[in-house]
Amino acid sequence: MKKLPWFYLPKLDARPGSAVLAADESRHLARSRRLRIGSEIVVFNGLGTTATAKIVDISERRARVALEMTAYAYHIEGRVRVHLAAALPKGDRQIVMLDMATQIGMTDFTPLLCEHSVAKFSVRSAARWQKTCLEACKQSRRPWVPRLHQPKQLPEMFNTGGKAGRVTWLADPRGGNVTAVQKVGFDELILLVGPEGGFSPGEWELLSDADIVPVTLAKSVLRTETAAVAMVSAAVTRLGI
Amino acid sequence: MKKLPWFYLPKLDARPGSAVLAADESRHLARSRRLRIGSEIVVFNGLGTTATAKIVDISERRARVALEMTAYAYHIEGRVRVHLAAALPKGDRQIVMLDMATQIGMTDFTPLLCEHSVAKFSVRSAARWQKTCLEACKQSRRPWVPRLHQPKQLPEMFNTGGKAGRVTWLADPRGGNVTAVQKVGFDELILLVGPEGGFSPGEWELLSDADIVPVTLAKSVLRTETAAVAMVSAAVTRLGI
Repeated sequence: MKKLPWFYLPKLDARPGSAVLAADESRHLARSRRLRIGSEIVVFNGLGTTATAKIVDISERRARVALEMTAYAYHIEGRVRVHLAAALPKGDRQIVMLDMATQIGMTDFTPLLCEHSVAKFSVRSAARWQKTCLEACKQSRRPWVPRLHQPKQLPEMFNTGGKAGRVTWLADPRGGNVTAVQKVGFDELILLVGPEGGFSPGEWELLSDADIVPVTLAKSVLRTETAAVAMVSAAVTRLGI
Repeated sequence: MKKLPWFYLPKLDARPGSAVLAADESRHLARSRRLRIGSEIVVFNGLGTTATAKIVDISERRARVALEMTAYAYHIEGRVRVHLAAALPKGDRQIVMLDMATQIGMTDFTPLLCEHSVAKFSVRSAARWQKTCLEACKQSRRPWVPRLHQPKQLPEMFNTGGKAGRVTWLADPRGGNVTAVQKVGFDELILLVGPEGGFSPGEWELLSDADIVPVTLAKSVLRTETAAVAMVSAAVTRLGI
């Protein structure tokens, strides 16, 4: 099953015997991947359900691919959510960040609006992120699509109710090594990554009052997207998830 | 010193009182960064020497910037070399890989020629890599430019003499967690990352005979450049360098 190409089929939860791919996925299957009737693929709904499916019909004109399911699988997501809350780097670097972070195991993303952020949030970029995360799931065979949350400023990150079970790491060159960090007793790990210009004095004040663990990732100064990827990687490695 | 922009000045080892930047660096300083006479910058030679320098003359026509040094510093590189030996992903992904790996702390790079590699080695891309690594050094304030080595096939990686003090990790989903890995007694850590198509049966045979430590980075299937960045990050975090 590992080597079959993956396609997104959000309506898989109903466990149908047959299904039809959406137009863009159908086009991708027929034109870019050049798959033919009789080939097998994997479809996933982004929520943990996958199925092996056989292609039974391809209509390129109508951009429609019909499938027959042969095997279902249900994957349970890890116990700990890995929630990246990062300032936004510039355009293409956002894509690299979300692509790599999804492959490695990010489960949630919140754009962090900081005073010194280099890029603003736009609904258009959010649509592009969704696509990037889906593609990264296909690439890395991850059956869960990360949840993309509304952008938040730092105070909102700490004001959301129900903080029990939540731990926050902050990427900070003055922090401790990640191997020294406590790794039990929480079900959501928030990974805070600030903008390249750094946090403002007001933001630092907030951070110093909050219950966060500063974690150092490298001796050098990392770009936002590099720090974000290193942070997700460190979290996944440390927690063994 | 941290916030001053960095420029490359390879001839810094002679400890001159004054110096002139090369044409491309001069152009970058005057046109892109729009710095003026009297401003301070940091220059570095890529081998651990840095100096603070004051701009004393700018000739845009001749692309020539003259500097006067005010303070020198010598940085000793870490005890352990972090040597990435990765199969080549496609064009732009090579750049992302080397950019991020350099920021995090890669000291050496060897392109690994595998049977299922997706991209070939070319001298032209090597020239581009050099530039990428230099830019990443400036960005992350790393005074040491990574050494780029000639491409090697897997057998050559294991045949180089003087193996004492060398440890090799292999990115392998079936490997162990990096936190369990021994971290003393070596001065060069080789990080092997295979191509997305995987190693060939012949290459696997070689690997199983070699003295390597398989290390798992994530439960999912990572692209070459993502695995490479996660590997360098895991090494730096694990070794605390």
